Amino acid sequence: MTTRKYTRPLFVGGFQVGGDAPVSIQSMLSVKSSVHIAAERQIQALVAAGCEIIRFSVMDMDDAQAISYLKRKSSVPLIADIHFDHKLAIAAIQKGIDGLRINPGNIGSRSGVESLVAIARERQVPIRIGVNGGSLPKELLHKYGHSKEAMVEAALSHVKILEDLGYYEIKISVKASDIHLMLASYRELARRVNYPLHLGLTESGTMLNGSIKSAMALGILLEEGIGDTIRVSLSADPLQEVRVAKEILINLGLRKGLKIVSCPTCGRTRINLIELAEKVEKALESFTDRNLTIAVMGCAVNGPGEAREADFGVAGGSGEALLFAKGEIVAKVPEDRLLDELIKLIEGSEA
Amino acid sequence: MTTRKYTRPLFVGGFQVGGDAPVSIQSMLSVKSSVHIAAERQIQALVAAGCEIIRFSVMDMDDAQAISYLKRKSSVPLIADIHFDHKLAIAAIQKGIDGLRINPGNIGSRSGVESLVAIARERQVPIRIGVNGGSLPKELLHKYGHSKEAMVEAALSHVKILEDLGYYEIKISVKASDIHLMLASYRELARRVNYPLHLGLTESGTMLNGSIKSAMALGILLEEGIGDTIRVSLSADPLQEVRVAKEILINLGLRKGLKIVSCPTCGRTRINLIELAEKVEKALESFTDRNLTIAVMGCAVNGPGEAREADFGVAGGSGEALLFAKGEIVAKVPEDRLLDELIKLIEGSEA
Repeated sequence: MTTRKYTRPLFVGGFQVGGDAPVSIQSMLSVKSSVHIAAERQIQALVAAGCEIIRFSVMDMDDAQAISYLKRKSSVPLIADIHFDHKLAIAAIQKGIDGLRINPGNIGSRSGVESLVAIARERQVPIRIGVNGGSLPKELLHKYGHSKEAMVEAALSHVKILEDLGYYEIKISVKASDIHLMLASYRELARRVNYPLHLGLTESGTMLNGSIKSAMALGILLEEGIGDTIRVSLSADPLQEVRVAKEILINLGLRKGLKIVSCPTCGRTRINLIELAEKVEKALESFTDRNLTIAVMGCAVNGPGEAREADFGVAGGSGEALLFAKGEIVAKVPEDRLLDELIKLIEGSEA
Repeated sequence: MTTRKYTRPLFVGGFQVGGDAPVSIQSMLSVKSSVHIAAERQIQALVAAGCEIIRFSVMDMDDAQAISYLKRKSSVPLIADIHFDHKLAIAAIQKGIDGLRINPGNIGSRSGVESLVAIARERQVPIRIGVNGGSLPKELLHKYGHSKEAMVEAALSHVKILEDLGYYEIKISVKASDIHLMLASYRELARRVNYPLHLGLTESGTMLNGSIKSAMALGILLEEGIGDTIRVSLSADPLQEVRVAKEILINLGLRKGLKIVSCPTCGRTRINLIELAEKVEKALESFTDRNLTIAVMGCAVNGPGEAREADFGVAGGSGEALLFAKGEIVAKVPEDRLLDELIKLIEGSEA
């Protein structure tokens, strides 16, 4: 499989990112954090979906104040995303935030940054430097054009500010909405630094298209061994971001979970395979702690053979279906009992 | 961008695959080809969606007979997928098929293969050799395990049969449902041969998850320059396969088309961005012949700046929105007129 590039580990709250930690999943609140109940509900839904780090915008002192409340309600680390105001960042730390996403070069005066780094060091709060292809400094755009050089130099200029203050609890992201620019920027950055990288394709779009683009962009880098934590950005419910991120990691072998393989329908198919595959996927959603591959095949001829590598599977016929385990047929069942029997078979195998 | 590996071009009907041809999109009928009307309708829907080569199973002489009818009804090349029966393959060629997917090693006797290759040569019908991770020969599985070596040796053994007969109009696929096996097999094959490669992740699953997996698998190879024609296999309507394939190619810069970038919602968002992005995407579906990037942004603060690289864009406010072109604001419009004004702006730019 893939060898991951080794990065310097850091801790967001008690949660390790980088080093030998598995690639983690992040998402972002779509509600304002100062609306306590809505934010709390969204945090809990994200955690239930498998989100491991949650970020939110802190735009004013109300949002910063809300941190102490949300910290009590969250079982996962929280990160505050703050622009241009080191006082908000200091307030966020004082309220107990686990991590910051700020760019030291534009968060405030030199003395402001020094105060911020002093308290970040004292409270062990790591900082993500987040460069975005859409908001590069004019002088870098002028010097390099809209290129990986501009992206990486922007990131490294922020890094240098922290390093000059002796602070190394750093993660970096260089997000862009264009896949080629995003890939080139992360590859160059991975060559230049050993800080953990937060991967993201920004403004990737709507549910399906954004998932396709993010899967390509993140998948390409992760398969090369680049990336320590990921956020899939979608114009969709943040819960969907977590779902897509999980699917990416599971299928690259970077996380345990259920893989469903199912054949495309063809002239040979005699059952409603599309519906069956969707149903199997839904029925097995809760099996997240085991590495299982389940095959859902349209025909009994190729089914068991083609899914030999699957742990369990079903192959449809006319009205009845075959259940199989490791490529061997174990039962023939009527189609309407197929799901129950499959689940029974999987649960029985846990013992 | 990516440099594509040069492959020996071939022609499916008049349609070039490999060489300097753009990466093409294939799909497969989910209805039986001998059901003329259903097959004809599906072919026309696939063509309208952007499918460039259509394959279908030919399982019996009825299916082979249907080819002459379907050829008259199709504006794109048709490929017959045939197993274990060289007589069906010969019949398919006689009925006018443009390409075959067969494995010469198990299509029939030596003399049968010779007759088949003779008529394929005469009618200039290329052959795709399609190895599938789920149906590898027992002796190769025994020798190599379920590995890229088994996949590639299986493919090359079929290739050798055709080469020994002096026939080189060959495409190859080595599909698997596991991404790592699929990637390793195609990479090894690309190192060993210069025949055009047909990429696919087989049995990839349901609509969303299958799209995510296919986008990763195909995206990784295409970004490396491997792949001449692709099929996304989904347990879903074949039209969706074409939609996903287009999205993959457009976003890798391998095909013209519309890119929508849209931001994830955050605490700053004051409009229904998810709905707006979906609407913009739908409204602009027909703009397939231009390379346009449209940004759909949630806030007027970051919107125009972050989408500076987009050709056109909208940034939402409260009840009204900004329209911009190349990062410059060109109009402020009420939210309910936003779509119409955007389309007018884009259409006006064609003149």
